[in-house]
Amino acid sequence: MTRARTPEEIDALITAAQEGDRRALARLITLVENEGPAVEAVLQRLYPLTGNAYVIGITGAPGTGKSTLVNAMTREYRSRGLTVGIIAIDPTSPFSGGALLGDRVRMRDLVGDPGVFIRSMATRGSLGGLARATDDVVLLLDAMGFDRILIETVGVGQAEVDIASSAHTVIVVEAPGMGDDIQAIKAGILEIADIFVVNKADREGAERTVMALQAMLGLAPRTMTHHGRRMRVDMPEEARAWVPPIIKTVATRGEGVPELVDAVERHRAYLLESGEFHRREATRVAHELDHILREALLQRLVRRISPARLEATVQQVVARRVDPYTAAAELMRREEEARGEDRGDGGA
Amino acid sequence: MTRARTPEEIDALITAAQEGDRRALARLITLVENEGPAVEAVLQRLYPLTGNAYVIGITGAPGTGKSTLVNAMTREYRSRGLTVGIIAIDPTSPFSGGALLGDRVRMRDLVGDPGVFIRSMATRGSLGGLARATDDVVLLLDAMGFDRILIETVGVGQAEVDIASSAHTVIVVEAPGMGDDIQAIKAGILEIADIFVVNKADREGAERTVMALQAMLGLAPRTMTHHGRRMRVDMPEEARAWVPPIIKTVATRGEGVPELVDAVERHRAYLLESGEFHRREATRVAHELDHILREALLQRLVRRISPARLEATVQQVVARRVDPYTAAAELMRREEEARGEDRGDGGA
Repeated sequence: MTRARTPEEIDALITAAQEGDRRALARLITLVENEGPAVEAVLQRLYPLTGNAYVIGITGAPGTGKSTLVNAMTREYRSRGLTVGIIAIDPTSPFSGGALLGDRVRMRDLVGDPGVFIRSMATRGSLGGLARATDDVVLLLDAMGFDRILIETVGVGQAEVDIASSAHTVIVVEAPGMGDDIQAIKAGILEIADIFVVNKADREGAERTVMALQAMLGLAPRTMTHHGRRMRVDMPEEARAWVPPIIKTVATRGEGVPELVDAVERHRAYLLESGEFHRREATRVAHELDHILREALLQRLVRRISPARLEATVQQVVARRVDPYTAAAELMRREEEARGEDRGDGGA
Repeated sequence: MTRARTPEEIDALITAAQEGDRRALARLITLVENEGPAVEAVLQRLYPLTGNAYVIGITGAPGTGKSTLVNAMTREYRSRGLTVGIIAIDPTSPFSGGALLGDRVRMRDLVGDPGVFIRSMATRGSLGGLARATDDVVLLLDAMGFDRILIETVGVGQAEVDIASSAHTVIVVEAPGMGDDIQAIKAGILEIADIFVVNKADREGAERTVMALQAMLGLAPRTMTHHGRRMRVDMPEEARAWVPPIIKTVATRGEGVPELVDAVERHRAYLLESGEFHRREATRVAHELDHILREALLQRLVRRISPARLEATVQQVVARRVDPYTAAAELMRREEEARGEDRGDGGA
């Protein structure tokens, strides 16, 4: 279905998407998801347009009502005059795509609204790949002018946690009666939460869930979250001023949703005023540069060393005639030689 | 607790571990887990000793009885005269470490056996870091002469799947009555299985679980697993000769465990005879070299560019004055100049 596109075609897609053509936007996202050479061209063109969207991650165990909550938050943001992009990360394999379809049916009332764009992404392939593609799709929606971007992930594994924690505000959703444990305890989800939601708060046990969360927050007074990493609290005053609130919602009826959106906006104001927003952005950019450099440096090395040499090196390591660290150092030495020869200065 | 160690201390630890000193082995593992500069030295020394262990990944949802199964398999291997290293990946956060302790108590009968070594690793920090540390600990146990290495992970996220799929044989464990769905459907676990186990097979619904697995295997006839990747079956005959068997066990009583170990050994023989084992090893080595090179190339670039320049670049990208791809290309150009200046040939 996807094929290589010329720079002119990409320009035309970007212009069309900026003018509100949804199919053009969907095609750009597909280009970016597939991670071809087109990604770099698209993102280079769009990058100057980014930096305005505010990114909100919503994570929680299956059954906590995340999708319904995302829909309700979207309606609330729309009523406040803001546009919303939704990225739904779906860990379901191809064999059970039913849930996804169900979610989209529930979102039907949002579909006709030009101020809302919904995209589902599946967790096939590698983890790193998905986190990267999600970041790129966020940039794309940001460049297209969406005010708020909601990333919905199932909080069952570290992968989903990593994806959610690249957001500016992370909402962790719980529900009463999901088992003995609060799901947040698992997989370090507690540490990344900026806001807790107890959804389905009309159900029995909601108050117990709230109290369990309060107790947990009390247990962890010495650490807090910075862009997904835990830090000690012996740092500047402004960095520890945010205490994650616990908000009760009944998403199906929209109850508590205005309060939740208020809390998100309060957290946004806090990040901006404390300088923390800028610090998180710098960390995000440093990680992105780090990733791009690793990839580009490896590509440069591979271009400068013959495929036969690379294959021979792999076979030598397989045969244990050389260890991988020594083999890598030797390849790097050869790369510098090859570069010297390229430029005619003789090499080392 | 951990501190830098001299090459002489590392040599002494390796010698002691090879002579059967368990505390020395545990210390080496800690060194490797913490990923300091010592890792490279340790692995360079040990690499020539590796390549003899056979690595078995065991994954499945919580509650399927994986730990008990791993213990039972270990006893079976011991009765066959083979030594066993166990790596238990525990995704539990610091707040609920009880399960881990419980597992270790259950393993008590194995603890006095010098032919068994058990190591737990927690999924704190980044995913990539854990997968990498697991690979390094596998190499270490391999070098120490363990015949079989069992990696136990909870199969809830793609991360755990990735870790398990670096094994030679991947066992996916199911249990009856775990819910409407078979857990394997989720997160692509189906695709990585070389062997399915229906544990707790004395419970009601076991036959239904077996039938559901058979139906799923029938649904996916056109793809199969190669080192964690799905491939079409229009490839050489020998590569599609393995059909994942479904084996019923009652791990608590050891029932079905000899048959399971037989199946693992049959899979091993199949991999070796078909040449697939060598292909998987080459793929694993290529990935390892790829990772080491990315890291080493980035380190080299960072050494050659001033911290002030790096920080200024990050701030320019944050301010959207330059996009990250262009910024990375500029840093790479500067690195080559800096190298030229190093060597006195003037640079570009």
